[in-house]
Amino acid sequence: MNIEQLRADTPGVEQLIHLNNAGAALMPNRVIDVMTGHLQLEARLGGYEAAGQRAVELENVYSAIGRLINARPDEIAVIENATRAWDMAFYSLPLGPGDVVLTSTTEYAGNYIPYLQLKKLRGIEIRIIPNDEHGQVSLSALQEMLDDDHVALVSLPVIATNGGPVQPIEEIGALARAAGVVFLLDACQGVGQMPIDVQKIGCHLLAATSRKYLRGPRGMGFLYVEKSLSQSLEPVFLDLHAASLLTPDTFEVRADARRFENWECNVAAKLGLGAAVDYALAQGIEPMWQRIQQVAGYLRSQLADAPGVTPQDLGSIKSGIVTFTRQGSSAAQVQQWLAGQDKRINVTTSTFRSTLLDMQQRGLQEVSRASVHAYNTEAEIDTMIEALVRMPRG
Amino acid sequence: MNIEQLRADTPGVEQLIHLNNAGAALMPNRVIDVMTGHLQLEARLGGYEAAGQRAVELENVYSAIGRLINARPDEIAVIENATRAWDMAFYSLPLGPGDVVLTSTTEYAGNYIPYLQLKKLRGIEIRIIPNDEHGQVSLSALQEMLDDDHVALVSLPVIATNGGPVQPIEEIGALARAAGVVFLLDACQGVGQMPIDVQKIGCHLLAATSRKYLRGPRGMGFLYVEKSLSQSLEPVFLDLHAASLLTPDTFEVRADARRFENWECNVAAKLGLGAAVDYALAQGIEPMWQRIQQVAGYLRSQLADAPGVTPQDLGSIKSGIVTFTRQGSSAAQVQQWLAGQDKRINVTTSTFRSTLLDMQQRGLQEVSRASVHAYNTEAEIDTMIEALVRMPRG
Repeated sequence: MNIEQLRADTPGVEQLIHLNNAGAALMPNRVIDVMTGHLQLEARLGGYEAAGQRAVELENVYSAIGRLINARPDEIAVIENATRAWDMAFYSLPLGPGDVVLTSTTEYAGNYIPYLQLKKLRGIEIRIIPNDEHGQVSLSALQEMLDDDHVALVSLPVIATNGGPVQPIEEIGALARAAGVVFLLDACQGVGQMPIDVQKIGCHLLAATSRKYLRGPRGMGFLYVEKSLSQSLEPVFLDLHAASLLTPDTFEVRADARRFENWECNVAAKLGLGAAVDYALAQGIEPMWQRIQQVAGYLRSQLADAPGVTPQDLGSIKSGIVTFTRQGSSAAQVQQWLAGQDKRINVTTSTFRSTLLDMQQRGLQEVSRASVHAYNTEAEIDTMIEALVRMPRG
Repeated sequence: MNIEQLRADTPGVEQLIHLNNAGAALMPNRVIDVMTGHLQLEARLGGYEAAGQRAVELENVYSAIGRLINARPDEIAVIENATRAWDMAFYSLPLGPGDVVLTSTTEYAGNYIPYLQLKKLRGIEIRIIPNDEHGQVSLSALQEMLDDDHVALVSLPVIATNGGPVQPIEEIGALARAAGVVFLLDACQGVGQMPIDVQKIGCHLLAATSRKYLRGPRGMGFLYVEKSLSQSLEPVFLDLHAASLLTPDTFEVRADARRFENWECNVAAKLGLGAAVDYALAQGIEPMWQRIQQVAGYLRSQLADAPGVTPQDLGSIKSGIVTFTRQGSSAAQVQQWLAGQDKRINVTTSTFRSTLLDMQQRGLQEVSRASVHAYNTEAEIDTMIEALVRMPRG
């Protein structure tokens, strides 16, 4: 990895130490230029007319995402954001009374609330897969749980929003496949950070966002739908892009994964996502993943040595999302203190509210979250640790 | 109206004659600047950190929309686009077997397909309100149809995508209210073009887009939900912005209309929408509406005089969307010819596919659509008509 080039491509690093890549990473120049350029083109040509001139680049978004996750372009839907991408998948599944959803303790509240909603509305049942000794999904427990014929879905995030383990998704996928159960993977924190190969994972559905490790714009995401499943799954919402009106009584849903899209689109953000994927592929996902783990490992070791600080990550494989608590300080105070440094340091706070099951199990109310990307440096980590050590106790 | 100022604010008018305002209007400088400025801020500060600095402007989006349509800010949800805003309203309604939806012949296929989908999935029934002698919804027919207790929803667009009448929405609203029936208004082509006052209309739900007559960005829209209905309507999708996870078994949906939103957001586009609404309000909606009708009226009269051209708009009140057919030319040929002029002229094509009921009833396969905004001039219309007259016959 050419870190100097990565940083030269990223205007934000001159002004701050950005350790909120799990919230929204800093966009590289190329992504910003593509978006602002397209907005200017829309202003000069008209919105539809500008999109017409970018037809090739718009198609490339699908093939670029396909290359990123080893899928076919017709298995990709580009959707307003990862929440709605995940919703379009989950709520479209034919889940009914007694059907069981298996999820992990690391599930995001934004996904868990929909499970509870369908428990109330459709009578589904939610079961939590226990963790193994590393704090990640226990594969033997999962295998046993899959023996129950009522299990209709395995659905979990590859990496939780509050850090923790990288789940063993290839092993989980193999077990789900063997049991003939649909596997919906929330890859929001995984895509752009680590290799994600839907063929190796064997997931049927995968939702992801643009703004996190992919370094694309906010307000954009995508959904992968395995070809055979796509054709049998009628989206919960349809419009005249997802389907055609044939007569006043008949409509036909389109054959590819774009049946999960709708006609309207933030074209600038879609092109921005395409540029971000191209950029990530040009850097190489595997070296990026090595580099992120290296910087995150350095941060964890420094945190472990800092007085009064406790690293809070579990898992035999850990990601770029590093979490910790500090004795005598709230996470909000840590965030505010670091943001107030000469060179602003962006970290954030993960609360109980967003990963209730996990936080409850670990007896935590909140953690500070410092999420690193490949463009972060060991020198930045040193500066962050020095500021943290200097911080007055509550 | 200060037309010169309007045009000075609109960089696109120097390079083209934009008559595709019903597709996406030209954005004023202020909207472009707000969006590109925010993208640059995100690049320099981080996505979440930039949004934090724009908290006041982000709240203003709700109050500005409230002023635009005479609603309370807590009755507004800002949603990725009008399709998903409309979907969140329609699909969340508790419609079941035998419930009747009344709509107009001018309904958009993008809304009509969802009616057919719920006919198939939930057994609802669709009835089309006949038109009066002007080609708009017959109020006496509607009144009679509302006598049937099975009617659960009146749902139609104020102005169709392929032109035609401005529907008498205040009268329709009064009849629906009197019958105790929910009224869902698709105001995509109305908002920004004409006065839309939800109190006067008495609609319960209203969906609109940013990119058309409001002159905001693509990929942004909003939903109005009357306060009393909002609290009883559980959105079809929930996340941790729309609801809170209280315990592993309980969640609580938020009280305001933002229960129809989700946490993720294209912040630049949301700020762009706010800037567009502020700009529209500063111009004045009533003078804008007068001006649009004046230019559209001029265009219709010129089209009527052009050899081989037939204006195709119905309705006692007509909007800025002007449609026509030309003998011996397809609409695609008209569009291409006009786009190829020295000063590019943007018109578009409305096909059978997007408004099937209306086009079938009128025996049309397609129409050319020239949609004017307040910044268009009579001189631009003259240039367009001259080019159309010069066009070789097919």
